[in-house]
Amino acid sequence: MSNPLFNVHFTAEGACVGKLRNEVTLTALEPFTVTRMLATDEGKFQGGDDTAPTPLEFFLTGLVGCLMTQVRVFARRLKVEVDDVKVLCRARWEAHPDDIGPYQGSPVGFEIDVDVTSAADPDRVAELVSAARRGCFVEQTLTRANAIEHTLKINGTAWQEDK
Amino acid sequence: MSNPLFNVHFTAEGACVGKLRNEVTLTALEPFTVTRMLATDEGKFQGGDDTAPTPLEFFLTGLVGCLMTQVRVFARRLKVEVDDVKVLCRARWEAHPDDIGPYQGSPVGFEIDVDVTSAADPDRVAELVSAARRGCFVEQTLTRANAIEHTLKINGTAWQEDK
Repeated sequence: MSNPLFNVHFTAEGACVGKLRNEVTLTALEPFTVTRMLATDEGKFQGGDDTAPTPLEFFLTGLVGCLMTQVRVFARRLKVEVDDVKVLCRARWEAHPDDIGPYQGSPVGFEIDVDVTSAADPDRVAELVSAARRGCFVEQTLTRANAIEHTLKINGTAWQEDK
Repeated sequence: MSNPLFNVHFTAEGACVGKLRNEVTLTALEPFTVTRMLATDEGKFQGGDDTAPTPLEFFLTGLVGCLMTQVRVFARRLKVEVDDVKVLCRARWEAHPDDIGPYQGSPVGFEIDVDVTSAADPDRVAELVSAARRGCFVEQTLTRANAIEHTLKINGTAWQEDK
């Protein structure tokens, strides 16, 4: 593959606070730098204190926000005048039985409706939205099976998982 | 596949506000109901006003928060006493050249370090963390190539994409 035009590198460090509240410190290392904390929680359904949005709300905000941002940023770069963009995403998962845990999480699918207001040539608007989808780091992550490397420490000692 | 134990269904509706700020209204329909707004923005690097965290911060908060929540919820269900959980996630993407847009987003990989403090049998703690990974809706979404169905409207008229 070609050398990247730029790299994107973030870390996210989560700490437990309260019953089910997590405080996640985000650090962007490339291509810009910023550090910020965002908290998640659960409502009564899951046994939380409802002090913050749930993780799936953050996840979907990342997906929709990233796509919308790419449409607007790429519109400038491709010189396609865009007056407004609306996105509606419907996301479904199912919980299935697991041999050990209470359930397994399984994604069913994502539907994303994009609604653009623009006086530009519709062919160019459609081309812009397609380019924004290819540029959207979150959507591109969801369309492929990603490598996730895990390590586990228990009381400070590395645990060797059997795989 | 077996009938699901329960369904998870969310919608996320994004509206453009300001230069690159997006206001995303999240609605959980199943298995609990809630509606809430979360805003994303970009810093000066991308041409935003920096009024809110960036989309990738939301995305990673969803990933880390979901996994941590499942560890704590499943710990109760599996009766494994857990005193503390810390998670560190490193996430990398690359931007590669695109024929039309300024770049394509491409995920490189995710590394997730889980650090559990517990007086329980380490085998059971490891089993708990594995079950939590299988139960984590976000991690399970990232490990597979998901179907994403798109529709596009331009000025209110449905656009038929050539595929």
